[in-house]
Amino acid sequence: MASSAASHLSDLDYRLLRRSILLGRRGWGRVHPNPMVGCVVARGREVLAEGYHALFGGPHAETTALAAVENARGATLYSSLEPCNHVGKTPPCTEAIRGAGIKRVVYWAPEPGSAAGGGAEHLRRAGLRVDGPVGEWTDWAAENPFFFRDPDMHRPYLALKLAVSLDGYIAPGGGRRVWLTGPEARAEVHRIRAGFDAVLVGSGTWRADDPRLTARGETVPRVPPVPVLLDRQGQATRDLRALRREGAARRPIVVTAAGQAMRLQGSLGEEAEVVPVSQDRRGLDLEEALGALADRGVDTILCEGGGILAAALLDGGLVDRIYVFLAPCLIGAGGVPAFPVRPNGAGAADGTGGRAMPEWRSRLEPVRFGNDTLVVLDRGA
Amino acid sequence: MASSAASHLSDLDYRLLRRSILLGRRGWGRVHPNPMVGCVVARGREVLAEGYHALFGGPHAETTALAAVENARGATLYSSLEPCNHVGKTPPCTEAIRGAGIKRVVYWAPEPGSAAGGGAEHLRRAGLRVDGPVGEWTDWAAENPFFFRDPDMHRPYLALKLAVSLDGYIAPGGGRRVWLTGPEARAEVHRIRAGFDAVLVGSGTWRADDPRLTARGETVPRVPPVPVLLDRQGQATRDLRALRREGAARRPIVVTAAGQAMRLQGSLGEEAEVVPVSQDRRGLDLEEALGALADRGVDTILCEGGGILAAALLDGGLVDRIYVFLAPCLIGAGGVPAFPVRPNGAGAADGTGGRAMPEWRSRLEPVRFGNDTLVVLDRGA
Repeated sequence: MASSAASHLSDLDYRLLRRSILLGRRGWGRVHPNPMVGCVVARGREVLAEGYHALFGGPHAETTALAAVENARGATLYSSLEPCNHVGKTPPCTEAIRGAGIKRVVYWAPEPGSAAGGGAEHLRRAGLRVDGPVGEWTDWAAENPFFFRDPDMHRPYLALKLAVSLDGYIAPGGGRRVWLTGPEARAEVHRIRAGFDAVLVGSGTWRADDPRLTARGETVPRVPPVPVLLDRQGQATRDLRALRREGAARRPIVVTAAGQAMRLQGSLGEEAEVVPVSQDRRGLDLEEALGALADRGVDTILCEGGGILAAALLDGGLVDRIYVFLAPCLIGAGGVPAFPVRPNGAGAADGTGGRAMPEWRSRLEPVRFGNDTLVVLDRGA
Repeated sequence: MASSAASHLSDLDYRLLRRSILLGRRGWGRVHPNPMVGCVVARGREVLAEGYHALFGGPHAETTALAAVENARGATLYSSLEPCNHVGKTPPCTEAIRGAGIKRVVYWAPEPGSAAGGGAEHLRRAGLRVDGPVGEWTDWAAENPFFFRDPDMHRPYLALKLAVSLDGYIAPGGGRRVWLTGPEARAEVHRIRAGFDAVLVGSGTWRADDPRLTARGETVPRVPPVPVLLDRQGQATRDLRALRREGAARRPIVVTAAGQAMRLQGSLGEEAEVVPVSQDRRGLDLEEALGALADRGVDTILCEGGGILAAALLDGGLVDRIYVFLAPCLIGAGGVPAFPVRPNGAGAADGTGGRAMPEWRSRLEPVRFGNDTLVVLDRGA
């Protein structure tokens, strides 16, 4: 699926394609399950209009950008996704492009779906010059991880978020709570949450922190993420902040051991949904838990810890992405390790590098948030 | 020193200033002890020429850029540093700017020296519109750390380079050698080395790795960094790769305990310079060692490990910058910690966060090198 078009592209083409990708990101939290798409209409170096897909069900990036141009005749349209060729919630973008008199289309990622696909070929047959796709599947997937996910993966897409000190800890010992990261990084976490169907934490974390697990940043999610608590022992209580529904359409979810479910549902009342799964001596069966969440329409999960849950998910091969916020501080020995080595884990506990993660790849550029750095790691292709 | 000029600047101004800063970076390893400076000459959005200070003693960025413009009359000159106003190795840039008919100058950082300073005022009096300085000392210092260093700091500028796994280790246990980072990150290390007067390692590192400590990347340093080995016990031998002079003008340096110096100098011969310093039960007196290096003209040092030396330098408040290469791998317990807590160190060994580093600041943008991420931390103002 690597591109043959790249050789035809100029520096300007790449710059405006890059711009279209960045514009597309504005749709995070608002367009799912659609992809994020951005678009630039330009005549040579002159940018005539920009647009992006802003809301699921709303106009596509291409039509938004074209609607803002008085005369696009002979112009070039850059899009981060192949223009769609089908009547869905909106008319096909290919028609809008032809109707506007666009002469050339440059796009980044192909439309993988058979229903909406074929736009590039359609436009070529209509006499337009079309350059794309550009780049590789792994890059498209890093940009739109839910949209380009492996269709054979029968579980929710799961991302892990960790704030890690320079020496690899997430917190001091003794259960004390500190903010490793600054306000800019915490704002970014709220933005990230807005793009997921659910925000998940293990029992150590909700006991220690009592987090709300809501997206309270500038990006207002179209559908708020549902809080999910793992609670093998059935100890969650009604007064937990994550279990306050606060007007959300969907009830928070508590995943517990099958033997605890009925009692726990009784004590939590109807404001929370209790989901029973099997357990073994290590804890809840995480694969079964993820499957049960998928059955309830949870396609994408952000897990925010703690370290034991994160390690179990990593060991189980259940993690698709890691958001690492690196904080410029030191915790010192005795802290809570971000990546504890489990005695029965896949790797070596003797520092022999057995738990190296050669399959993790850094595809997105790191970003600085105040003093902290966000590194996004995606499971390697 | 914060700027009052910033409010006058347009988005275009900021973009071209940023461009001038990036151009200046091409001088890394070639211009020291001068600062890195870049320059853009533009008429509105049209960039007429670019330039940068490419070599110590050679033409400045401004004159390089102006020399490439046929007609700069009425144009704007952007520079990452205030144009100089003195006859040094080259004529004053202010004269070149006036002579070319430049109408407006936008600059980022002020010229701190009294000899070369005053350029902005000189140009203003000559009737040019001059906007600058822009931003803050801390940002200028992050970009040109040697040039904007604290003049009262009577020791070499010291940067620490560490390649760290996600779980905070620099290597597996048992002295085994692994590359945590990929080839792109290692190439960047060679580029970074080219900008320092010396590359320093502790005895554990040269014993385990036998590194050459030379800058063997695309950036050929004007003056190659001198290898410096710490060797309290006087165990260095002639066959170490760092001690092969390989045509370099300057002899490698071995810092040892005073009692070992004469014997060691005898065994190493004249190809290495042995520098004696005091020691205590913790090891060599690092402040004295840095002072001795400063006495020998070493103004800037890159320390590449190991962890014990790094921790001692951090504990001693002797580190000005940390280059952290974060590698997406896990080592597991038993590895060599990047930031070991010393029993007699300044911080707490109980994970109480006593060794938090609130004074460290991330001023430069992080950069991805292959799968690895470089985070640059500067000592806070």
